[in-house]
Amino acid sequence: MRYELYYWPGIQGRGEFIRLALEEAGADYMDVARLPKRGVPALMRVLKNRSLRYPPFAPPFLKAGKLVIGQTANILLFLGPRLGLVPKSEGDRLWTHQLQLTIADWVAEAHETHHPIAGRLYYEDQKAEAMRRSANFTAERVPKYLDYFERILKRSPKGTGYLLGKTVSYVDLSVFQMIAGLRYAFPRAMVRLEPKYPRSVALYDRVSSRPRIAAYIRSPRRLPFNQQDVFRHYSELDS
Amino acid sequence: MRYELYYWPGIQGRGEFIRLALEEAGADYMDVARLPKRGVPALMRVLKNRSLRYPPFAPPFLKAGKLVIGQTANILLFLGPRLGLVPKSEGDRLWTHQLQLTIADWVAEAHETHHPIAGRLYYEDQKAEAMRRSANFTAERVPKYLDYFERILKRSPKGTGYLLGKTVSYVDLSVFQMIAGLRYAFPRAMVRLEPKYPRSVALYDRVSSRPRIAAYIRSPRRLPFNQQDVFRHYSELDS
Repeated sequence: MRYELYYWPGIQGRGEFIRLALEEAGADYMDVARLPKRGVPALMRVLKNRSLRYPPFAPPFLKAGKLVIGQTANILLFLGPRLGLVPKSEGDRLWTHQLQLTIADWVAEAHETHHPIAGRLYYEDQKAEAMRRSANFTAERVPKYLDYFERILKRSPKGTGYLLGKTVSYVDLSVFQMIAGLRYAFPRAMVRLEPKYPRSVALYDRVSSRPRIAAYIRSPRRLPFNQQDVFRHYSELDS
Repeated sequence: MRYELYYWPGIQGRGEFIRLALEEAGADYMDVARLPKRGVPALMRVLKNRSLRYPPFAPPFLKAGKLVIGQTANILLFLGPRLGLVPKSEGDRLWTHQLQLTIADWVAEAHETHHPIAGRLYYEDQKAEAMRRSANFTAERVPKYLDYFERILKRSPKGTGYLLGKTVSYVDLSVFQMIAGLRYAFPRAMVRLEPKYPRSVALYDRVSSRPRIAAYIRSPRRLPFNQQDVFRHYSELDS
């Protein structure tokens, strides 16, 4: 099965959580809006198509055969078993998805740090609010999320170090991406916080040294972090 | 199966999306933190339990036999087929869940209108920011979400009027709850907006007149909207 991922071509954004899963699995996929002959128009055509059975609200969405699937965590729910990135039991699958939904909340909050008033306004038009929101995010919210994932990793049987036990799942890749993004956006805060979360940092290292992920990160397929993305670095927000 | 729902006892909040599904199905359930002999301590014991296999990040969570399931949309993903509130095919189930995740984003944004800086600060300490955020929410975000659901309802075969076709699903109940909450929080904005979304308003009416939902709404099990909840009414935010 060749998967077609549709996402904005210039950013990692929410699409990156899908890309990491596809890359880790060595899946056959196209990143449609980044193909020269397809581009953003191909994405917009799907968004505006009024005859689709399952019209997505926003990117990312995935075409898999006849299905069009939207919402990042939902796409991973679908892909997980197909890519071998989730255990087999219903309990474990719901649990992996539950963790991914918690990541989704965390990502949304990371975006709100620089856009606490409105996604359509410029950062400069909400900078004062962004400073207040970011201070709370790094002081309270990042620790709350990291506490939670650290606690789950703590139970992992010795030497495994993945969230669900001995094999990697898509939510491990997502924790890697969260830490990567937070390091880019809030380097000073992360230097201060990371020593309290050794297992989460070890998970980051473990994921980034997996052969396919390491190759992906070195490749041009991995877009650099940038200032149009979900994670943005503004020095004044990282105190 | 007797389900045990754990949620804060004084508010509808995110728990209400689960309550509506359980009520519509006539399911056997306990709203644990509202039972006099259990209360919030029973909820806190689960949250603090370090030996749980699947520890939740936050309420609501559901106990179903040996499973403990967190995240509102994930709970509905689990309950949907068991309560007969979702079609059978994988495509339709993913689609229903995708819509529910879009509702989840919408709920989070509704909460951000009165707490755009930090959940732990008082409203009064972020009132100026809340006014800016709310103005954007009612002018742009509510129309964007309602446009989307209206568009989906528009395709519904004549006379059915549910999002997935002829039978009710849990996401119909959630759209009902969104409109109910928005009417409470932003009555002036909703009076202005609703004429543009006749199918969504008709869905609200259709859900609220379903016998079990109607009985639930009249019962003391349905908590009133209030100012500690996700949906809050501040006149200055509803311009």
